[in-house]
Amino acid sequence: MSRFAGRAGPIRLGMVGGGKDAFIGAVHRIAARMDGEFELVAGALSSTPERARESGAALGLAPDRVYDDFEAMATREARLEDGIEAVAIVTPNHLHFAPARAFLRRGIHVICDKPMTATGAEAGTLAAEADSSDALFVLTHNYSGYPMIREARAMVADGFLGRLRGVQVEYVQDWLATAVEETGSKQAEWRTDPARSGAGGALGDIGTHAFQLAAFVSGEAPSEVSAEIASFVPGRRLDDDARALLRYASGARGALWCSQVAPGNENRLTLRLYGEAGGLEWSQETPERLTATRLGEAPRLMTRATAGAAGTRLQRIPPGHPEGYLEAFANLYVEAAAAIRAAREGAAPPAGTLFPDVADGLAGVRFVEACVASAAQGGRWTALS
Amino acid sequence: MSRFAGRAGPIRLGMVGGGKDAFIGAVHRIAARMDGEFELVAGALSSTPERARESGAALGLAPDRVYDDFEAMATREARLEDGIEAVAIVTPNHLHFAPARAFLRRGIHVICDKPMTATGAEAGTLAAEADSSDALFVLTHNYSGYPMIREARAMVADGFLGRLRGVQVEYVQDWLATAVEETGSKQAEWRTDPARSGAGGALGDIGTHAFQLAAFVSGEAPSEVSAEIASFVPGRRLDDDARALLRYASGARGALWCSQVAPGNENRLTLRLYGEAGGLEWSQETPERLTATRLGEAPRLMTRATAGAAGTRLQRIPPGHPEGYLEAFANLYVEAAAAIRAAREGAAPPAGTLFPDVADGLAGVRFVEACVASAAQGGRWTALS
Amino acid sequence: MSRFAGRAGPIRLGMVGGGKDAFIGAVHRIAARMDGEFELVAGALSSTPERARESGAALGLAPDRVYDDFEAMATREARLEDGIEAVAIVTPNHLHFAPARAFLRRGIHVICDKPMTATGAEAGTLAAEADSSDALFVLTHNYSGYPMIREARAMVADGFLGRLRGVQVEYVQDWLATAVEETGSKQAEWRTDPARSGAGGALGDIGTHAFQLAAFVSGEAPSEVSAEIASFVPGRRLDDDARALLRYASGARGALWCSQVAPGNENRLTLRLYGEAGGLEWSQETPERLTATRLGEAPRLMTRATAGAAGTRLQRIPPGHPEGYLEAFANLYVEAAAAIRAAREGAAPPAGTLFPDVADGLAGVRFVEACVASAAQGGRWTALS
Amino acid sequence: MSRFAGRAGPIRLGMVGGGKDAFIGAVHRIAARMDGEFELVAGALSSTPERARESGAALGLAPDRVYDDFEAMATREARLEDGIEAVAIVTPNHLHFAPARAFLRRGIHVICDKPMTATGAEAGTLAAEADSSDALFVLTHNYSGYPMIREARAMVADGFLGRLRGVQVEYVQDWLATAVEETGSKQAEWRTDPARSGAGGALGDIGTHAFQLAAFVSGEAPSEVSAEIASFVPGRRLDDDARALLRYASGARGALWCSQVAPGNENRLTLRLYGEAGGLEWSQETPERLTATRLGEAPRLMTRATAGAAGTRLQRIPPGHPEGYLEAFANLYVEAAAAIRAAREGAAPPAGTLFPDVADGLAGVRFVEACVASAAQGGRWTALS
Repeated sequence: MSRFAGRAGPIRLGMVGGGKDAFIGAVHRIAARMDGEFELVAGALSSTPERARESGAALGLAPDRVYDDFEAMATREARLEDGIEAVAIVTPNHLHFAPARAFLRRGIHVICDKPMTATGAEAGTLAAEADSSDALFVLTHNYSGYPMIREARAMVADGFLGRLRGVQVEYVQDWLATAVEETGSKQAEWRTDPARSGAGGALGDIGTHAFQLAAFVSGEAPSEVSAEIASFVPGRRLDDDARALLRYASGARGALWCSQVAPGNENRLTLRLYGEAGGLEWSQETPERLTATRLGEAPRLMTRATAGAAGTRLQRIPPGHPEGYLEAFANLYVEAAAAIRAAREGAAPPAGTLFPDVADGLAGVRFVEACVASAAQGGRWTALS
Repeated sequence: MSRFAGRAGPIRLGMVGGGKDAFIGAVHRIAARMDGEFELVAGALSSTPERARESGAALGLAPDRVYDDFEAMATREARLEDGIEAVAIVTPNHLHFAPARAFLRRGIHVICDKPMTATGAEAGTLAAEADSSDALFVLTHNYSGYPMIREARAMVADGFLGRLRGVQVEYVQDWLATAVEETGSKQAEWRTDPARSGAGGALGDIGTHAFQLAAFVSGEAPSEVSAEIASFVPGRRLDDDARALLRYASGARGALWCSQVAPGNENRLTLRLYGEAGGLEWSQETPERLTATRLGEAPRLMTRATAGAAGTRLQRIPPGHPEGYLEAFANLYVEAAAAIRAAREGAAPPAGTLFPDVADGLAGVRFVEACVASAAQGGRWTALS
Repeated sequence: MSRFAGRAGPIRLGMVGGGKDAFIGAVHRIAARMDGEFELVAGALSSTPERARESGAALGLAPDRVYDDFEAMATREARLEDGIEAVAIVTPNHLHFAPARAFLRRGIHVICDKPMTATGAEAGTLAAEADSSDALFVLTHNYSGYPMIREARAMVADGFLGRLRGVQVEYVQDWLATAVEETGSKQAEWRTDPARSGAGGALGDIGTHAFQLAAFVSGEAPSEVSAEIASFVPGRRLDDDARALLRYASGARGALWCSQVAPGNENRLTLRLYGEAGGLEWSQETPERLTATRLGEAPRLMTRATAGAAGTRLQRIPPGHPEGYLEAFANLYVEAAAAIRAAREGAAPPAGTLFPDVADGLAGVRFVEACVASAAQGGRWTALS
Repeated sequence: MSRFAGRAGPIRLGMVGGGKDAFIGAVHRIAARMDGEFELVAGALSSTPERARESGAALGLAPDRVYDDFEAMATREARLEDGIEAVAIVTPNHLHFAPARAFLRRGIHVICDKPMTATGAEAGTLAAEADSSDALFVLTHNYSGYPMIREARAMVADGFLGRLRGVQVEYVQDWLATAVEETGSKQAEWRTDPARSGAGGALGDIGTHAFQLAAFVSGEAPSEVSAEIASFVPGRRLDDDARALLRYASGARGALWCSQVAPGNENRLTLRLYGEAGGLEWSQETPERLTATRLGEAPRLMTRATAGAAGTRLQRIPPGHPEGYLEAFANLYVEAAAAIRAAREGAAPPAGTLFPDVADGLAGVRFVEACVASAAQGGRWTALS
């Protein structure tokens, strides 16, 4: 039982990162707020104290809950009677590890953006920390929050595909097709900086999403990877385009492509799974649709209207009323809230509660490093664990 | 200047209707909450006091802000120091008029679901009330909140179509294809009951959305209508399917179709506009896309990525990250918040603020009644104003 | 038994119209040739003798089989040992009647383009002629030759829709959005000329296709129509845009829209049928797909791969290898060939043989004239037979 | 100048293979016939004489032009006054080489199905033969006959993409998802038999199409390949699924996937090309559309209506009237006819004439063998020439 047992009302949330000009911090805040499950009450919003204070004021935080750094926040909030029960970490990759560890150690639940850490070493350490902590660790591979992704996962688990044969997963964008990191884009700057992003550029930023999604839905993770990576924009220090072939222990084969330099693609994350008995296809830009084909039958265009329990468990509005990216993101906050409320009472999360965790985080960072290593050795098949 | 001048923080909101089992009340609450602009603090959530109290408790309202009826709520909230500044009315159609008038008369801003009223007489009266009130009246024709609909409207205003020639608008569903009103669907019950819905069934429930959207985007409202309506499900007392031909003063021609009995359609609201110089096509189930064709050129598949100011003004996340129904709905709350904050200080809303209002509501109710009258007279062309 | 009984090899075909610069004549020739069922051996290809001879030479016809007019051709070919057994009539609308009658009277099978005639009076007369002739009359409502249209028709006949409720059919183009008939387009000239086209512009040219297709698939023809027609391009003498509401004796309702002035539409013929039990949707620009929904189930994206006998009877290549407009057109020639070969021996066509005939032609011309009459009387509901 | 100089009328064509039950032979015959450019007059249609005679009779060939083997046909036809001027070779892969050489050596133009030969050694030899022959060698990589593929190629050549960065090409089917070769499918039998197909299964049958198409449109061929191949169906002796990473000398990178075991895919050949300045996307199942995006602009949905000279050069009917697989295939016959007629007079083909030839054939066979070799060595990067 936690010190918050028996509490009513929204869960008190803190945030690390997410000050002005941040992108993903705002997404987390909307996601946390959408269903009334969380209330943002504290923040270490920026590494610049003045900026942190401005951002805190803009968000309506009480001045004494606006911190200069995450350490001060972790220390004090853990002691406050009405201290935060969970923290969202929305900093660049290299600033995930230290705050995540600090909050976990104080029993504060962590909701962390991806990739989990900038290095495999940090990832391993953090995984051990999470395993030994009573606090939850939720990794926001947000695409796993889409209802039709949940449905697809359930269908696969239920044998729709039969034995898995092929996995095609892509995450393709075009916003880094030119050197925008040199012309003032804060978002591009850190994502193309090895010191802040780690070994992977596109691989870490979006490749890990693709990797996680394929495993989340298929129920299988590849055992080996053979990769080829490229930095097409002159002067760029990290990959902006990567292709990987995948081998699965089950005998399945796959391919993953991520790119941030493919004109005409905004945020095209697509997943296709093929097995002995059927196929499934899904694309993030039309997330309410799942095309499901039993071998020999006509493809069925499934939506939440014809989904089962898994695909409708988290919906807010009837099918035909499109839920999108923010709702899927918020679904992870809904799951986190359920798990947190259960944890207060020392209980397991309600049946069906599902969110990416530290194991996904570790697998993602290892995937990035394995791709980089494989590519450096001419595409040598490289083990993923 | 209002008594709320100078206030910071979320706008205090009340709600009429929206108790347990309600659909649209929950939508309004998410929309109000999504951007942190409103805080729900009071409610007359049900006509059954016990149900009202249960619903209020479930929503975390203070017990003394949970009212048995809207009159009590209007009277008391208007006197409270921290009383509500706005109210959302989310009852069935026949229960819009009285509360809307009550709150308008007390200077409390009204955010009202559609159709505005159940009868044209009420609509005319309410329009006069709204015109003479200092309070705002916002009608939640929520589809007008989609970014690409805003973009389309701006493109039309900017001459993209040239002179308008053709309007094709449809709103098609299938959830009433059988007599679900007889098998326990509360949502179906009141929508098929003339006493609660007014003269129109599908016409009022979804036809008004289609009618408003076409006018919102095209900038033109039809002057005459010739309609044919049907009730396909045996025993149904209101139309579940209606087709109307439209004449515009400009010479344009159009057609509107609404149906709730067309299998395979969840919530297919589509708008197509054609002019001398170009064409525009949009569909609600893929709301992030707008197909725009200049005569003689290839259709362009526009998204927020290539939209102008109108299409990007209200976005929360980058293009490719789909925003959906709830975000579009919330956009009307964002607009309402901006107008309310301006009104506090006696100012006009910020430039660009745009929401459906009492004029749209009046036009919608008149459209329903004109269609019913036209159909009763063998499709006689019937004036809309 | 005909004088051609027992013959082997391709059926000898003549052509009326189809000289240089013609569009549909070339289509008929490819369609006739595609499957090796017909051989073009004679022609009255143009009303200008010199042009007729040039065209004949270009097509490789023997000089003595190139005629100055259809009368001469009908007279002589009927007497030749190796005379034509069938004739394709591909002239403008007003020049269908006389040659069709002339060939029918000589026992030569007629394959005639649509609309069947320019006036209802001619249509009635021709229908009587066809009924009293031993020769076949095939009307090239070519869209009824698409495999998935055949499949849809069979599904409807088999009860897929249950009782029909709604019909939405459209045929929309943009090539007449400007006054191209004034700038040298031969195709536009005659189509916008009442003397050559009859009472309908878009109505006759494409509206009749839409009308026939809806009836062909649904198995029901409307009994009454209420129409509104327009000529948007200044100076145009026939409608370029028409909308009609439809009433069926069964209680079904529908709408038909045809336009040649809607920018962004090339040749968008779409058909949607809805019944108590299901829905069907098809679009000519992606003709290999048929979306079929049983109420309450996911839409199925059918192709020839999952079609039954009706949808695969006429295919040449496996599904996934798209067959298009010419193949569908050729399918009518295949059907005609089967019927002609059977007729030689005095037999009925093989089971399943299916093509539009004089009844479709009569219904189409009546539809055009009923729409024009209805529109002239403010949309009065007008009987179709 | 050939012995056929000055001839009028269709080109006389022979066929090797294509007897009863053949698939691609019938396709070639329709393609040859569609535009009236060829007349089939002779054939060695089957390795079984009786079957050859039956097939010849069914096709209406004169009995003395039906041969028991290709050698007899080549020898005699080369001497006949009205002998064939071209031959279509439509046998399984291992039976391309010998007849192709035999006809080339006699100056008879060869139109050969793909892959060109079953082995690289044969391919090299045949390439040399073709280079030293006066006769043309046309390889029916038929997808290069689609108008929008021609348009895409022209756009790339004109700089639309800028410098090429990424190539994604796939050819995916599902018809071999089970062991249909063991249950009587003739088409499956030889395609899964190394003795008849060569080293590649899916690689040869469809991978070569994908490989050729990517090079045809992009104007670049990869220099190295790293492949992983699989035979998912138990007992199958050749690959039914292959994935390859591609390196280009220009620095571009790519991936190719071919599979015949992916449920829900009929004949999904898709090509996506991305460069510094733009992107192009095309899919064979909707071949009339080409999505073209300039970086920073909205994707344009191009069709023949907005194509330039390259995309409209070979069309038969207006845009919106879909041309499909057979028309694209026939376009190669149109090109071949133009080249053959020019060759008669010793002239170069007309400007713009374009067809895959022996170089494409050689590259395709090398690609298959390189993929097999690479896969056998753990995905080692393997040179393609």
